[in-house]
Amino acid sequence: MTDLLLLPGDGIGPEVIAEVRKVAAVLAPDLALDERPFGGKSYDLHGEPLTAETLEAAKSAKAVLMGAVGGPKWTGVARDKRPEAGLLGLRAGMNVFANLRPALCFQPLADASSLKREVVEGLDFMIVRELTGGIYFGEPRFIETLPSGGKRAVDTQVYTTAEIERVARVAFELARGRRNKVHSAEKSNVMDSGLLWREVVTDLHKREYSDVQLEHILADNAAMQIVKNPKQFDVMVTDNLFGDILSDAAAQLTGSLGMLPSAALGEPGAPGLYEPIHGSAPDIAGKGVANPMAAILSFEMALRWSLSRSDLADRLFAAVDKALASGARTPDLGGALTTAQMGDAVVTAL
Amino acid sequence: MTDLLLLPGDGIGPEVIAEVRKVAAVLAPDLALDERPFGGKSYDLHGEPLTAETLEAAKSAKAVLMGAVGGPKWTGVARDKRPEAGLLGLRAGMNVFANLRPALCFQPLADASSLKREVVEGLDFMIVRELTGGIYFGEPRFIETLPSGGKRAVDTQVYTTAEIERVARVAFELARGRRNKVHSAEKSNVMDSGLLWREVVTDLHKREYSDVQLEHILADNAAMQIVKNPKQFDVMVTDNLFGDILSDAAAQLTGSLGMLPSAALGEPGAPGLYEPIHGSAPDIAGKGVANPMAAILSFEMALRWSLSRSDLADRLFAAVDKALASGARTPDLGGALTTAQMGDAVVTAL
Ligand SMILES: CC(C)[C@H](C(=O)O)[C@@H](O)C(=O)O
Ligand SMILES: CC(C)[C@H](C(=O)O)[C@@H](O)C(=O)O
Repeated sequence: MTDLLLLPGDGIGPEVIAEVRKVAAVLAPDLALDERPFGGKSYDLHGEPLTAETLEAAKSAKAVLMGAVGGPKWTGVARDKRPEAGLLGLRAGMNVFANLRPALCFQPLADASSLKREVVEGLDFMIVRELTGGIYFGEPRFIETLPSGGKRAVDTQVYTTAEIERVARVAFELARGRRNKVHSAEKSNVMDSGLLWREVVTDLHKREYSDVQLEHILADNAAMQIVKNPKQFDVMVTDNLFGDILSDAAAQLTGSLGMLPSAALGEPGAPGLYEPIHGSAPDIAGKGVANPMAAILSFEMALRWSLSRSDLADRLFAAVDKALASGARTPDLGGALTTAQMGDAVVTAL
Repeated sequence: MTDLLLLPGDGIGPEVIAEVRKVAAVLAPDLALDERPFGGKSYDLHGEPLTAETLEAAKSAKAVLMGAVGGPKWTGVARDKRPEAGLLGLRAGMNVFANLRPALCFQPLADASSLKREVVEGLDFMIVRELTGGIYFGEPRFIETLPSGGKRAVDTQVYTTAEIERVARVAFELARGRRNKVHSAEKSNVMDSGLLWREVVTDLHKREYSDVQLEHILADNAAMQIVKNPKQFDVMVTDNLFGDILSDAAAQLTGSLGMLPSAALGEPGAPGLYEPIHGSAPDIAGKGVANPMAAILSFEMALRWSLSRSDLADRLFAAVDKALASGARTPDLGGALTTAQMGDAVVTAL
């Protein structure tokens, strides 16, 4: 059985995943790794960004680690064959509904951000983004031509009680192991799905998690508070679209998009999907300058959440921190190390 | 004919609008002002947050200046009678489809933000938010009970070519008078309305505005770039929901939500709707400590965009800057002036 299926994907994906292989060979040589083409790479080979075989391999592995997908090469491709469609298909196919996106400020990088040091130093909060529902998957969605000659486009946001409850449960459970505080972000003042979201989270909290502190926050105010005073947050749970936007803003707080991993989890025991927050970065692909830390830390999350090896995860996390403290910096952090040298720095720190 | 209809609304709304009256009496004593209850106040008096008479008065004024609406008092009220529903009804009823939300860093406040001084000093960009379409108004929208006993909520995002084109036109025109650059933000990698948005903006640009620099940006990346390097932006045009969130993040950049105005414009010649970005702030309402600058600057935008008095607008803007430079600060800016004293400081600077 495969422990970890690697999907390097496109752009800088293969470069950063190569560093994960390097780290894994030292830290966990017993792990059974497998690898498949994915995204644009898979489209080029098979005419599909996600083949049925790859989805099967993902569902039967213990964990899946993706690099990145997409790039200008595939812009002209029909939308359901684009690399991004492969990613959405993988998330839905694996049923990984809870996306954990940490906003974490590494101590050695407390000055790397556009925010003042005191605002981000020690920052450690977690966004739990619903990942398999909402406007990303709702039907109907179409573009039609109007009698007038113009067009009309429709997208549909759909959420059920069950979808909201299961992701909120992940957030409450997480908070119990952290600082015991959950913010639930929606637009219940404008959207019916926001009203249901608030109602379901409130009910679940009352029934099973009244020991956790719960606050409801409007998504626009959440965006503002993330910029103003991010340290007020511990866990924030929100829908697919708000989570996409708020987690990108939060990621940037730490000044180091190249540092941030994510984990997408399904039902207990089912394989998780791990990916760096960053994209395929076509502008630097092939140059060997991408920061591999986000991929390495995604591997760290996989060890912790899917591979039952939190001992190794702890060691890896400490090694990343140590490498940073010793001054290891790729260009995105103002340094001059190559991707491979940054991977080496982590291996050395192990 | 009314020049400016004041809708003080709820919470701190009446307090900040009182300062606008004070400023207007000195700066433009000839303006014909009128005033009506709105939002929660109107609901309490008439059972409706926006009466037909008030909407008529708004449509026949030259400009409308709103304070703020809403508060905990009306949380239990049916959603279509809530203060926020009155605001959405006013926007739709006045057909003010282009919402201009400046992210502006006043020089004397360059240190007031959570961002580093060099990141925000001199910041001056404008978000143009579509305000009368999208998921705020699309049908169907409902919550239904499922056979299983759970519920299902649906919201619909709808955009037509005409709706996108008219707001993009406002953005291109604005850019021509500024630094000639427009970013158009959407999620065309995920949403059909995003695909149409990108197509319509691209076409309009090619047909009529090819002298303006246009860049397309995904909304999640926009959130990130707003935090990372906001000075790269001049004008950003986006839909109603993304605009709500991105403009709140942008507003916070300047560290002074209490400073930021907005203008909502319709077809040329039709009245504009002006409002501070901040809300009704129930926690400080009645205490006389709210910052009236956002309301005063909303009045400044009304003078400029609806009342054809840009000479007075220039004078007022300079007076605000001067008052700040002389050290006038309400508590949100770390000072101790009351709302009335802050208004007085502007009058003095006039
Ligand atoms: C690539 C894109 C489809 C994706 C998303 O919108 O979910 C990305 O932005 C992300 O956040 O993982
Ligand atoms: C009060 C609310 C309905 C409103 C909105 O969502 O548009 C507010 O957040 C705003 O940005 O003006």
